[in-house]
Amino acid sequence: MNAPLRQATHTLHVPTRGRGLIEITNEIRAWVDKQGIRAGLLTVFCKHTSASLLIQENAAPEVRSDLEAFFDQLAPEDPSRYAHDDEGPDDMPAHLKTALTSVQLSIPLVDGQLALGTWQGIYLFEHRRRPHERQIALHLFGSA
Amino acid sequence: MNAPLRQATHTLHVPTRGRGLIEITNEIRAWVDKQGIRAGLLTVFCKHTSASLLIQENAAPEVRSDLEAFFDQLAPEDPSRYAHDDEGPDDMPAHLKTALTSVQLSIPLVDGQLALGTWQGIYLFEHRRRPHERQIALHLFGSA
Amino acid sequence: MNAPLRQATHTLHVPTRGRGLIEITNEIRAWVDKQGIRAGLLTVFCKHTSASLLIQENAAPEVRSDLEAFFDQLAPEDPSRYAHDDEGPDDMPAHLKTALTSVQLSIPLVDGQLALGTWQGIYLFEHRRRPHERQIALHLFGSA
Repeated sequence: MNAPLRQATHTLHVPTRGRGLIEITNEIRAWVDKQGIRAGLLTVFCKHTSASLLIQENAAPEVRSDLEAFFDQLAPEDPSRYAHDDEGPDDMPAHLKTALTSVQLSIPLVDGQLALGTWQGIYLFEHRRRPHERQIALHLFGSA
Repeated sequence: MNAPLRQATHTLHVPTRGRGLIEITNEIRAWVDKQGIRAGLLTVFCKHTSASLLIQENAAPEVRSDLEAFFDQLAPEDPSRYAHDDEGPDDMPAHLKTALTSVQLSIPLVDGQLALGTWQGIYLFEHRRRPHERQIALHLFGSA
Repeated sequence: MNAPLRQATHTLHVPTRGRGLIEITNEIRAWVDKQGIRAGLLTVFCKHTSASLLIQENAAPEVRSDLEAFFDQLAPEDPSRYAHDDEGPDDMPAHLKTALTSVQLSIPLVDGQLALGTWQGIYLFEHRRRPHERQIALHLFGSA
């Protein structure tokens, strides 16, 4: 692959409805498909400290509710555990869940398709109780 | 470094023998060494939701058994905890361990060598009880 | 963005004073600013198995102490739990905390600025009790 390399960036705005996993695979694919790049690397970056990214199973919805329950139990809303609660009892658990998952993912692009496995979907993991509008920076580079 | 940049992709097939850490540093290095790229960035992407990637110590084997035991305890095989068990008691723990670790790693390439530290090895972390063949997408770009 | 792409690499040396989060955003920005690249992708890679990277809130210091306490509790210094203690009781917990967070981050660069959110800072998370000098490999590519 010696074709000329070029790059593109974009900011995705994702409204959330409070805690939980929101699939953003289609929004990301729609942008990638318009860039005219068929081989390369996509980077997805979540610009927040109380929301994160996860690649997880896109089939059984129970996987998502089990994931949410697991992280709620691992980093519970219990003010007695944390010194930081400037924005309420869900504030510090949100930072902990962000630290335990990730704010960045990079995915190869091969033959015009993201190299996701059959069951992999890209999710924004909102950790705050209230709805937010989250900003996701996208960076794509590669060749046509 | 103003040399022309180019890229290469590959899929690595890794057979596993059930739960545990499998070092794949040598397989990855062997492919990188053949691409004629000496400075750049390698991305390793695991195309699964029940297996993940980890960079860990490649010396003492007890580190790997302690890591495996830690994640088994953190996300135990206990059907009473999970709604999802379509594929058995190790199904949901496998998704949780994948979420707690990572499916993607990017490693700089400097002077023809991956910038791994002295004790760092790249591992595929199989989370299912039964053997699987796992697919790892590799993307490398850089200059000669 | 069809400007010619080029790349640069660097190793950052970060002295630590034992366990805790050390902000390295300014050191990273200072290097990026000197490369003459205004659009692209920065990759930060920690060359260790007992220290890791985290993007977290850069405002309230209690977030950092709560994060440290949380990971201390999740992976406690308790020799009875681990087979590996070659370097003391903080050895295996350091590997576990590294596995639960990340050794690599990639951040888009847009209009000459890292695409970090308002409250995001880049931290080196030292997991060993004693001071260390840690090596962080930086890779930047993009266009002017």
